Amino acid sequence: MMPTFSLQHLADLVGGSTIGDPETPVCEALPQNDVIPGCITLADSKQQAEKASLLPASAVVVAEHFENCNKPLLIVKDIHMAFIQLVLQFRPSLKPVETTETQIAASAIVEPSAQIGIGSQIGPHVTIGRDCKIGRRCVIHAGVSIMENCEIGDDCELYPGCVLYNFTRIGQRVLIHSNAVLGAFGFGYRHKNGGHHRTAQLGWVEIGDDVEIGAGTTIDRGTYGSTRIGCGTKIDNQVQIGHNCHIGQHNLICAQVGIAGSCTVGDFVVMGGQVGLADHLTISDHARIGAKSGLMSNVGAGETVLGSPAAPIKQKMLEWAVQGKLPEMRKELRALIARVEELESSQSLKTRREAA
Amino acid sequence: MMPTFSLQHLADLVGGSTIGDPETPVCEALPQNDVIPGCITLADSKQQAEKASLLPASAVVVAEHFENCNKPLLIVKDIHMAFIQLVLQFRPSLKPVETTETQIAASAIVEPSAQIGIGSQIGPHVTIGRDCKIGRRCVIHAGVSIMENCEIGDDCELYPGCVLYNFTRIGQRVLIHSNAVLGAFGFGYRHKNGGHHRTAQLGWVEIGDDVEIGAGTTIDRGTYGSTRIGCGTKIDNQVQIGHNCHIGQHNLICAQVGIAGSCTVGDFVVMGGQVGLADHLTISDHARIGAKSGLMSNVGAGETVLGSPAAPIKQKMLEWAVQGKLPEMRKELRALIARVEELESSQSLKTRREAA
Amino acid sequence: MMPTFSLQHLADLVGGSTIGDPETPVCEALPQNDVIPGCITLADSKQQAEKASLLPASAVVVAEHFENCNKPLLIVKDIHMAFIQLVLQFRPSLKPVETTETQIAASAIVEPSAQIGIGSQIGPHVTIGRDCKIGRRCVIHAGVSIMENCEIGDDCELYPGCVLYNFTRIGQRVLIHSNAVLGAFGFGYRHKNGGHHRTAQLGWVEIGDDVEIGAGTTIDRGTYGSTRIGCGTKIDNQVQIGHNCHIGQHNLICAQVGIAGSCTVGDFVVMGGQVGLADHLTISDHARIGAKSGLMSNVGAGETVLGSPAAPIKQKMLEWAVQGKLPEMRKELRALIARVEELESSQSLKTRREAA
Repeated sequence: MMPTFSLQHLADLVGGSTIGDPETPVCEALPQNDVIPGCITLADSKQQAEKASLLPASAVVVAEHFENCNKPLLIVKDIHMAFIQLVLQFRPSLKPVETTETQIAASAIVEPSAQIGIGSQIGPHVTIGRDCKIGRRCVIHAGVSIMENCEIGDDCELYPGCVLYNFTRIGQRVLIHSNAVLGAFGFGYRHKNGGHHRTAQLGWVEIGDDVEIGAGTTIDRGTYGSTRIGCGTKIDNQVQIGHNCHIGQHNLICAQVGIAGSCTVGDFVVMGGQVGLADHLTISDHARIGAKSGLMSNVGAGETVLGSPAAPIKQKMLEWAVQGKLPEMRKELRALIARVEELESSQSLKTRREAA
Repeated sequence: MMPTFSLQHLADLVGGSTIGDPETPVCEALPQNDVIPGCITLADSKQQAEKASLLPASAVVVAEHFENCNKPLLIVKDIHMAFIQLVLQFRPSLKPVETTETQIAASAIVEPSAQIGIGSQIGPHVTIGRDCKIGRRCVIHAGVSIMENCEIGDDCELYPGCVLYNFTRIGQRVLIHSNAVLGAFGFGYRHKNGGHHRTAQLGWVEIGDDVEIGAGTTIDRGTYGSTRIGCGTKIDNQVQIGHNCHIGQHNLICAQVGIAGSCTVGDFVVMGGQVGLADHLTISDHARIGAKSGLMSNVGAGETVLGSPAAPIKQKMLEWAVQGKLPEMRKELRALIARVEELESSQSLKTRREAA
Repeated sequence: MMPTFSLQHLADLVGGSTIGDPETPVCEALPQNDVIPGCITLADSKQQAEKASLLPASAVVVAEHFENCNKPLLIVKDIHMAFIQLVLQFRPSLKPVETTETQIAASAIVEPSAQIGIGSQIGPHVTIGRDCKIGRRCVIHAGVSIMENCEIGDDCELYPGCVLYNFTRIGQRVLIHSNAVLGAFGFGYRHKNGGHHRTAQLGWVEIGDDVEIGAGTTIDRGTYGSTRIGCGTKIDNQVQIGHNCHIGQHNLICAQVGIAGSCTVGDFVVMGGQVGLADHLTISDHARIGAKSGLMSNVGAGETVLGSPAAPIKQKMLEWAVQGKLPEMRKELRALIARVEELESSQSLKTRREAA
């Protein structure tokens, strides 16, 4: 059974006012795509308010009084801030876990030499290796594997199934989603005696404060030293970051990006989905790389590049515009060659005539 | 020791007839690429029957009597239906697990408030959180993590290591392969005070009936509501589906496809491998998207698009055909410019001569 | 507390000589990007030696006496061989686990019919199914799932969270990184009665000796028989290999490559990152495929191809060079058409004049 609250109760909760019956019962908070009878939804424009009128929702959160919406309204300044509070009212288990006392699940295997900070929660089937240090108020979910000699700061959250190889170092307030892998071996081989032989994989992965790492993302350890992700950088799902890369601060790296080994990326760089970087590139601060681009050379500060191989966005957009006209251009060129041939033959005819 | 059966025994099993010695002993059922002495293999053409003659197999499953094959034959109407039965005869543990009674491994951690349907099997090291509901006859393999408030229908199978974040909803007969992650946070941030701040990630993932999800695939939860996969849709390995996407029914989405947030995909859509979709696109019913395409705009019903940026297949094929001739076209253009210059100068010469 | 050694002690360890104070205390071995005060670093050129002079490192490993480096030096023939030894001296837990006696963690679930070879170590929360055979001196890390009827050779290492589906066969000295999945179902469906129906997924995955498989990589089982990876082939992270593929020996397959079903790849093939192969292709020995290429046709022995759709490298480089000039070419073509028109009209004028 879902709990039910009156519209007025919800308005008081979010510091808003109501139009229509304040006793309207509300049983959930859902976006327009997912409304069920009895729920409250939201509308951030006149158009959306009109759409909301036609839905089975019982009330609508709005920032102003839309006359075209015939539902009871809950009016607030910031509809998104308010809607978050409403959702958490109906689905309270979405609130972040409060970690006041240290809890280690009976099925977790924590080596005696590992240190767990006060207020941290270690879930079922977690493994924490020798000499690890886990900070305070961390939440380590079910089935996470932390190999020996790892260090994790305070207030981190690691979701089920993610893996830290030995010597991984994690800052404060880092969030790592399920099945991400930090510290696996870089892809470095030397060809010798007819086979490939792995080069040294003795470094580590180092993650700055406030970094977020998506599900299934892999970040390889350095050769002798660090593969480093700077503070505040956010990495989406299924991203691959090669060994010895140094990624700066406050980057946004979208899903399925692949960064080959030994790249240096500055601060506030944005990479769209499925971008690929060749090894040893330098991408400077505030560069922007369009989705699916393939980079074979460096990108300067503040530049925006696109395409594969990538080029400055203006140039690439021009190229793409013309590319669609290629078949036509080829026809025109063929026709023009014929016309020039005709001109030439008629001229040579004339020349010969004149010479005659 | 492998079991051995006579060819006649196998023919009786699959309702077929034999040519050659019915007592031929058979120890395995293997395709031509993997034959070992004593096995039965299959041939679906005259050519393949001839190839089979040269292999160490003891017998061949065929749909007709190929004279060019000197092996004992097992003749059936549908060689694939028959071969499946033969493989299962030799490797019986490939048969789907029959779940008649509820089994919960001693090492599984199931919260007391979780409900497990009759006939379901919960494997070792599985974690099932508070208030989850698991249907009947489900098989939850080793190390699966199901966080609180998830709902799973009947007859689902979840392979080792897959993760459902809280509030994930799964229909009937859904199959989820290893290390897939459903319900991780969408990649949504607001830039404020010099850093990126995560937007609300309070929705859920909703999977329709008969959906299959490949290994390592990630599907992010919606902002306030659902990220939805329609009934009968099949998703390959390492696919990424962003938050708030609504994917229709009976799609085929091949490996390593990336779909950015808030896309709407119709029914019976086919996407080749490594396709990328920008956010907020609409792909209509029966659209087909060629492998490795990059989409920046909508695709109409029944259209086939290709390339990056994508274009209708006819146009793109023409473009690609001409593209290979670009260097030649450039040469022709250079030459033509020279010829026109010559024509012009000879003409101006003539004009001056005539004027003289 | 890090251990500290004298420079002379380290020189003796690696068979090198010292220049400068042999009693210099050294507390770590780190590459130039990661130096901390008191560590030894390395320099493989005059330029790097000069850079090292400016760093807080206490000593430098070099192959010759660089006069421009004012730090105590440790001179050795092969600086990389020496540096590996030094790192292992300071971080001894990076040395491979020595497996002299069989160890099975109390929390591992090993079916009674499974066989574990002498000297193998089975980590916490591992699951090993019925009738599995694990060789000698294997290291199976935490949370690995090995389903029934798998066979693993000697001296293999499987990192946390990787999954082998039933009937997977692994050779000797194979290394599988975290969350890789071997043996999930191929993406094969038949359209029938308005839905997609899975075809048979009854084969297995077969991995040769000395293969290495990256984190998050997925390799699907064959239809009736094998998906095969040849001896000595190295596969990076997040690679997808479809069902029935036969990959040869000593390949290098970089991150995020996708190989569709039933491809045949020869020996010593190199594929760059994010390459995609259509199904049923044949790639011959020693072929090289540039990063991000999309292949729709076979590649001959020793060929290098590039681009999407891929073409021989020479041709593709020419195409790409001209592509950047496309907007210019279009302008030239427009201008030329105008000039030819003028020539034509002036000529027709002349012709008319002459006719007059």
